[in-house]
Amino acid sequence: MKKEKYNVAILGATGVVGREMIQILEERKFPVGELRLFATEKSAGEEITFQGKKIKVRVVDDHAFEGVDLVMGDTPTAVSKDLIPKAVKQGAVAVDCSSAFRMDPDVPLVVPEVNPGAIGRHKGIIAGANCSAIPIAVAVKPIHDKFGIKRLVISTYQSASGAGKGGTDELAEQTLALFAQKDPVMKVFPYRLAFNVIPQIDAFLPGGDTKEEVKIIEELRKMIEAPNMGVTVTAVRVPVFVGHSAAVNIETEKKATAAEVRELLKTVPNVVVKDDLSKKEYPLPIDAAGKDEVYIGRIREDVSTPNGLNLWVAADNLRKGAALNAIQIAEILIQKYL
Amino acid sequence: MKKEKYNVAILGATGVVGREMIQILEERKFPVGELRLFATEKSAGEEITFQGKKIKVRVVDDHAFEGVDLVMGDTPTAVSKDLIPKAVKQGAVAVDCSSAFRMDPDVPLVVPEVNPGAIGRHKGIIAGANCSAIPIAVAVKPIHDKFGIKRLVISTYQSASGAGKGGTDELAEQTLALFAQKDPVMKVFPYRLAFNVIPQIDAFLPGGDTKEEVKIIEELRKMIEAPNMGVTVTAVRVPVFVGHSAAVNIETEKKATAAEVRELLKTVPNVVVKDDLSKKEYPLPIDAAGKDEVYIGRIREDVSTPNGLNLWVAADNLRKGAALNAIQIAEILIQKYL
Repeated sequence: MKKEKYNVAILGATGVVGREMIQILEERKFPVGELRLFATEKSAGEEITFQGKKIKVRVVDDHAFEGVDLVMGDTPTAVSKDLIPKAVKQGAVAVDCSSAFRMDPDVPLVVPEVNPGAIGRHKGIIAGANCSAIPIAVAVKPIHDKFGIKRLVISTYQSASGAGKGGTDELAEQTLALFAQKDPVMKVFPYRLAFNVIPQIDAFLPGGDTKEEVKIIEELRKMIEAPNMGVTVTAVRVPVFVGHSAAVNIETEKKATAAEVRELLKTVPNVVVKDDLSKKEYPLPIDAAGKDEVYIGRIREDVSTPNGLNLWVAADNLRKGAALNAIQIAEILIQKYL
Repeated sequence: MKKEKYNVAILGATGVVGREMIQILEERKFPVGELRLFATEKSAGEEITFQGKKIKVRVVDDHAFEGVDLVMGDTPTAVSKDLIPKAVKQGAVAVDCSSAFRMDPDVPLVVPEVNPGAIGRHKGIIAGANCSAIPIAVAVKPIHDKFGIKRLVISTYQSASGAGKGGTDELAEQTLALFAQKDPVMKVFPYRLAFNVIPQIDAFLPGGDTKEEVKIIEELRKMIEAPNMGVTVTAVRVPVFVGHSAAVNIETEKKATAAEVRELLKTVPNVVVKDDLSKKEYPLPIDAAGKDEVYIGRIREDVSTPNGLNLWVAADNLRKGAALNAIQIAEILIQKYL
């Protein structure tokens, strides 16, 4: 069903990721026919400009997906689980950024730089990965292919926007409250995030990991197709508005020098190796914010183990970590598979 | 030279650590005879209140250390290297928080919870360890003693006050500037710290580690007396005023369950095991700030390797990470060795 233009529906259109999706569709000149924007009742009626035209945000009804080719969205898991199958039943292909379907064996979990071929195996739904898992997967996949990865030890530095617009608002409000000597209000985060770091993202699971940590572990294994790769994660929220970072420690099967890894990563599309210590060049979340690329730096050998490596990754969690990644998947989908 | 009271000199008395030292000496009723406060010319003349009396801050001169029993301070390395030997020559014992003498084989590097016995081997100088190394050493020493540690992978979340008063001022000023839509000014940190994280603390060394990372590695090995223990560190500055945190991944020789480690750490003096996930209890830097204890939580087994463990540590970097640690050393010194 190769078409000139595709009818696109965005779920969660007024959220931080939904808004990025609309903007990126326009930026990248995605061949959009009709664009339908959906959100909850609270946001319905709002107008969002796309290609110079105002589009009214609606609530999903029985006819919402009629004639829609492509559904994309980042909604709460329960919402995705409800709406995405309905859209697929009505003939759409869905690229879902939520965690609802990521670990479903019938659903490809895709980062285009990592496993674009998986897109072709879709049965209606393609999942985009967790916003921290995506840039880490981009960084470690080529290393796994060339040197074999035995184990990853990951510590994340995740921004407030990973919790949506409520998260960035809360960080700003808490910060201002503290300067005004008022009590900061907590709604989104379990503790004050302003001038603090919180070693909990999402709920705790038996064994003591958080859901976020387990998502990163399982999704990395699935995308890299390394089901037995050892991965451990500590996921930490930091008072940054946009841009997730991670310290990634890698043990490889074969010895990899820092220089080899640097050269290897320079060949990866959409990766910027920012790693010139003489100029104090390394990735920062504030530099990654608003950018499409995954930034990798501080690539160095870790002599605490025979084949150890350290690197530092930063990327825009709303763009490469969610909206852009979904649209890159959609681009491949329409080029090759629709 | 057991005495009722000891004459104490503080170097860097107007700095963030110096001020904490003066306060803690008073809080803990350290038997201070005369208290002499020293700083650079810029701060000389300032008056600091101790036990209800104002003491004028002076510049060090040739007679500064005459009659002084104990010198304590946290000054730049070059200043310590110059002044501490002079004080020792004049008969004082020095507890130095700078990195000037830490790796000197003749200088004990001490955290009282870790290696109090080393104090007795001093030849005039005792060094306090790096502000991130101290709480990590407190956390891992009992684990090493009972289960043997093969390797540590550490990612730090270090507060602005680790860079002194200039650091906390800069974080506050940058934050306010951003809300006022002005350009934030950088003097202390290499990049904007407000709403950002910076994966560089101190200068880079050949091999790509920073000096801070190498300090943590070498000091942990020295204090724990495990010269061959594998340690790798990524040291990151985060926009927190006071309180350093760290994600610590541990590989032990013998299998240790999370429950065993939790029970073990509960027996360590000055450690608070804050680890009840059902109540969302885990260490936060804002909770550790102003406290004397090392907070440890998120203790969990890491199944990515046979004998893996993860834990999360937070402590007040000015108190336990520097000033308090020095005074605890001084207390043992006067009780047992002076």
